[in-house]
Amino acid sequence: MLVRAGVVLLTEKGFSATCVDDVLNATGISKGSFYYCFSSKEDFGRALIESYATYFNEKLDRWLTDQAVAPLQRLLNFMREAKTGMQHHAFRRGCLIGNLGQEIDILPDSFNVMLRTILHGWEHRVTDCLLATCYPVPTAAQETLCGRLSRYFWIGWEGAVLRARMEHGPESLDLFATFYLAQAAAELGVPSPLSVNTPTTLRGSHALPVRAKTGQAAG
Amino acid sequence: MLVRAGVVLLTEKGFSATCVDDVLNATGISKGSFYYCFSSKEDFGRALIESYATYFNEKLDRWLTDQAVAPLQRLLNFMREAKTGMQHHAFRRGCLIGNLGQEIDILPDSFNVMLRTILHGWEHRVTDCLLATCYPVPTAAQETLCGRLSRYFWIGWEGAVLRARMEHGPESLDLFATFYLAQAAAELGVPSPLSVNTPTTLRGSHALPVRAKTGQAAG
Repeated sequence: MLVRAGVVLLTEKGFSATCVDDVLNATGISKGSFYYCFSSKEDFGRALIESYATYFNEKLDRWLTDQAVAPLQRLLNFMREAKTGMQHHAFRRGCLIGNLGQEIDILPDSFNVMLRTILHGWEHRVTDCLLATCYPVPTAAQETLCGRLSRYFWIGWEGAVLRARMEHGPESLDLFATFYLAQAAAELGVPSPLSVNTPTTLRGSHALPVRAKTGQAAG
Repeated sequence: MLVRAGVVLLTEKGFSATCVDDVLNATGISKGSFYYCFSSKEDFGRALIESYATYFNEKLDRWLTDQAVAPLQRLLNFMREAKTGMQHHAFRRGCLIGNLGQEIDILPDSFNVMLRTILHGWEHRVTDCLLATCYPVPTAAQETLCGRLSRYFWIGWEGAVLRARMEHGPESLDLFATFYLAQAAAELGVPSPLSVNTPTTLRGSHALPVRAKTGQAAG
């Protein structure tokens, strides 16, 4: 319960603006119990980051290794679920890792390595998904390209999540998905999952239909 | 001096984590003098946002309306200068507007309208720059495309600035510039400023040479 309340506060407010009392107030747990579990706010923060990373890695693995659908469609499915999750919380919750990234220079040093490791894990997963478009074995050039496209994905996705929070709406997520997938498809020489039925996708408005499944946070 | 110190603190730490005492300590100004100038921390925050917006709009206008260079090159020049500015501060300072966006739901309501207005102004400037590629008069489709490309630019650029702060390095800015400009050039049917001498730009590593001019912040 402490970890859950902590993740909510951190995805909404960030680390610096959240104090232990906020967490205690949100859960009704006593200060004594808190410090029985965690030696400090920093220790608590590390537990939250670990919990979020585990949850999020499972989510990514579920979508990005789904052999039943084409690789770029897997990425789109992930984005659609993340959008549903943000909508569920009225676009008030962002990405814990992105939020902490914004505070990076005032966070405890121990967070820094954790955040980078988590981001590398996310990039690795998207790279592997993109490499699945390269038959039968990716060339060295394709490996480089997929690694760069993966980094570009996370750069833009975090920007889109930030904007969705600022606007309290999904339009930035849709716009990002449309442009990004068009470019990735062109670079990889595969069809874009968004252009199959809409050949003029890039130039028209294009809302992503959302799936029913609800996620906790946006990446 | 107060505004300058405040902008530094806000681009490094954000609003919530900055208290009035931090500003007073950084400047040596007394609490009495501070409250003679500003009625509250919120009032001070609004002055900082206005000051940053004025400074940044002038910077954008300087680069994006430079008739001596092609429109996409203007955008690249802006990114190069912003990168130099971030390097100058060891990638510890981000974009004031992006930082505040991350805190949006815990900020005073009065900030919200200001931030949206500023972002719309930035988008408008990039849209106009992109429209300059459309001769002699842009079609309705081109107007829509340039507006969408402009929003996509700011979504990705804020994400790239966030990542550059997390990594304390410029690689995300270079990666973003390379992919974004390639896509914008393809969509607009003009040459990319990065592909003139490097036909395989997208697939190779591509560091942006920086210009000597130093900027204060990254957008």
